[in-house]
Amino acid sequence: MDSQRKDVGILAMDIYFPSACVQQESLEVFDGASKGKYTIGLGQDCMAFCTELEDVISMSLTVTTSLLEKYDIDPKQIGRLEVGSETVIDKSKSIKTWLMKIFEECGNSDIEGVDSTNACYGGTAALLNCVNWVESSSWDGRYGLVICTDSAVYSEGPARPTGGAAAVAMLIGPHAPITFESKYRGTHMSHVYDFYKPILASEYPVVDGKLSQTCYLMALDLCYKRYRDKYEKFEGKPFSLSEADSFVFHSPYNKLVQKSFARLYFNDFLQNSSLVDKDARAKLEPFTNLIGDESYQNRDLEKASQQLSKKLYDAKVQSSTLIPKQVGNMYTASLYAALASVIHNKHGSLDGERIVMFSYGSGLASTMFSFKLHDGQHPFSLSNIASVLNVAGKLESRHEFLPEKFIETMQLMEHRYGAKDFVTSKDTSLLSPGTFYLTHVDSLYRRYYLKKAATEANSLLANGH
Amino acid sequence: MDSQRKDVGILAMDIYFPSACVQQESLEVFDGASKGKYTIGLGQDCMAFCTELEDVISMSLTVTTSLLEKYDIDPKQIGRLEVGSETVIDKSKSIKTWLMKIFEECGNSDIEGVDSTNACYGGTAALLNCVNWVESSSWDGRYGLVICTDSAVYSEGPARPTGGAAAVAMLIGPHAPITFESKYRGTHMSHVYDFYKPILASEYPVVDGKLSQTCYLMALDLCYKRYRDKYEKFEGKPFSLSEADSFVFHSPYNKLVQKSFARLYFNDFLQNSSLVDKDARAKLEPFTNLIGDESYQNRDLEKASQQLSKKLYDAKVQSSTLIPKQVGNMYTASLYAALASVIHNKHGSLDGERIVMFSYGSGLASTMFSFKLHDGQHPFSLSNIASVLNVAGKLESRHEFLPEKFIETMQLMEHRYGAKDFVTSKDTSLLSPGTFYLTHVDSLYRRYYLKKAATEANSLLANGH
Repeated sequence: MDSQRKDVGILAMDIYFPSACVQQESLEVFDGASKGKYTIGLGQDCMAFCTELEDVISMSLTVTTSLLEKYDIDPKQIGRLEVGSETVIDKSKSIKTWLMKIFEECGNSDIEGVDSTNACYGGTAALLNCVNWVESSSWDGRYGLVICTDSAVYSEGPARPTGGAAAVAMLIGPHAPITFESKYRGTHMSHVYDFYKPILASEYPVVDGKLSQTCYLMALDLCYKRYRDKYEKFEGKPFSLSEADSFVFHSPYNKLVQKSFARLYFNDFLQNSSLVDKDARAKLEPFTNLIGDESYQNRDLEKASQQLSKKLYDAKVQSSTLIPKQVGNMYTASLYAALASVIHNKHGSLDGERIVMFSYGSGLASTMFSFKLHDGQHPFSLSNIASVLNVAGKLESRHEFLPEKFIETMQLMEHRYGAKDFVTSKDTSLLSPGTFYLTHVDSLYRRYYLKKAATEANSLLANGH
Repeated sequence: MDSQRKDVGILAMDIYFPSACVQQESLEVFDGASKGKYTIGLGQDCMAFCTELEDVISMSLTVTTSLLEKYDIDPKQIGRLEVGSETVIDKSKSIKTWLMKIFEECGNSDIEGVDSTNACYGGTAALLNCVNWVESSSWDGRYGLVICTDSAVYSEGPARPTGGAAAVAMLIGPHAPITFESKYRGTHMSHVYDFYKPILASEYPVVDGKLSQTCYLMALDLCYKRYRDKYEKFEGKPFSLSEADSFVFHSPYNKLVQKSFARLYFNDFLQNSSLVDKDARAKLEPFTNLIGDESYQNRDLEKASQQLSKKLYDAKVQSSTLIPKQVGNMYTASLYAALASVIHNKHGSLDGERIVMFSYGSGLASTMFSFKLHDGQHPFSLSNIASVLNVAGKLESRHEFLPEKFIETMQLMEHRYGAKDFVTSKDTSLLSPGTFYLTHVDSLYRRYYLKKAATEANSLLANGH
């Protein structure tokens, strides 16, 4: 690899999530669920959702223009644009083609890449593809851009509070502050029906929650093993949790992230890692012989390993959980929203650190990979990325909906999914300036979007004053 | 690029199309269309289609196992598997995950890649991704595998005869007989509604035929310009049709391929290429000033440029049209079925030749790129690829359906699309040995497939005799 292509990775990031949200605590009351079922049982605080004004296309338009503007990137400098999503608005036309509107207006239609699909894994597939492109002989020196955009909605029932919505944008190129360690990659793919979307006219998935959790943890074990093997092969020393500073997981709900990190700790124990002290070793010993499903479903093992790894969790995982707990499951965007949370929380102290990522998409596709972090140079510095992400500001300026209003919105959206010939509400007051929104869908199902003026002055300008 | 990664491209290919087909001539009669409307107007001979026993998943299972067996590839030697398709059976679970069944049985679940989506372009996206992977720092030395699989069906009306169905498999790696010329790539992507699938519960697309044809030809012009520019930059001489031996186009129907090649010829004329002689120049002169839509819709220009380029078409395009004319539109598989036709027809004389490819997917995504051909070493030789493809044998052993029976099948398939809880016909007599087929879909929409025994002896074996 020549020096031009060194340290390929994420140069810049931005995130968008709808301002509409509902508190998990109030959902518990509204649903008549036991207190703490969503907040402690699932580990979730709040859930964002799209109203009729927004969808995965509008969110990706918003986050793409925002990234280009905030990092001052000329749209002509983008040579590849890939989208990861599992929210299907059209079964043939890619979300990427909607985004082309932004680039065509600037005279750039020469942009490779389309949409990648496999549940929550599509964003990772898009990211790996984009990195490979920069390292390939067909790279033309321009930036890659990866967009993860999803709206997670569930039919009434226990899965409903595990929804969420967001779009993440990542600029890809060499000399990145968030550099791929391409050699240490552990992948596991398999044919299972844990979560899928065979009911084509409905936005809701078919979910086997218990199976999906087992599949996730099995995939985690396998990917961790493969990641460790490759690490040891290239580094000449074994990998354990102490070799990385942060662990970032795909987060359908926070409780699974807690279980996942505990599971990695249990793996380290099984590998006789010195990370696990004598005392902890004694407590985990009884679970050594559990095999298969037993091992993934044993409550005592889960409890013991979570307790024993609690301190490490606080040090290495906690900082990634902010946005996933506040916004909910964002499918393809979920893992990268968790990465954004780390940068938000720790950007001043990440230089030289390693972040291990675990991406999971039902069906299933999973990969563990890692980044090396560097402070970087403005505008592609970790501190500038944190400032553009503006996580605290975005979380604070949200609009809380009552559960009744959330349910009403879900019902309206059920009718709107796959529909034609309708206009949306003219009231865009809840949208932040610069947000794209759906205005109408015509009789041929063609969708029309507008951008809310970025400032009041611009808004007046747009009205011809 | 180190020597290990030199000459990355297509090492091996296989194709599968359903044995069920209907003659375009008999469809013309059945539909009460004017004689020649489908055969000359569209340029199509015959159309393959899936009966209730087959779908894009079964076809991709069939072609994947066939390629692995015929080239004697250990499934553990596959490190990446990507699927291009626009035929949605599940909106979240990728077709790739169904294919994992083949590899998991052989102990290989460590295979990157998912599905790529944008109409007929998804296969090209998957192919470019796979090639980039081999050239990237994350390549682990194993093969890539690209599957293009689609079933093209249309509601009753003028588009119905432009259906088709097939799956193509391509093995990717270095030292390939079909080598990518990665530097000469011309891409054009844009936001248009020429063909799309917003009606989620239906398998049929929404099509604006006239717009789609104009978009295709405009994209062709732009990609050709960008391809030429890059060629000239790296080769130091201008590109014209004389620089390549074959031109292979995405083929929704053959007539558009005829128009497309004529359009490239007209482009060469506009570039003052010496390829266009004085006589031809005089005949095309009147059309020089046509701009925009006028230029794409002018019948006289179309006629003149087709007549003038007819000899070149016969030499450089004709050999690619066999399968697309006989099988129909295969969406993502269409372009690669056309490439397979070239190899079938000309494998003995391709060494050293250049093939230019034009990939188009509505919505839209388009790329022009090229291959350099080498005879290659067995099993990855052009002659062996031609022998595995067995195009003539596969075309000959098909089963012709009467139009009534074809319509009946379409009606059944309309009910089956997105349905649950059904079993398919037990009569698999029309399937070739080794073909996968759908046996049933359960109450949770889970799909079950079986493989028809490869030989009668195996069949007995499978029954325990």
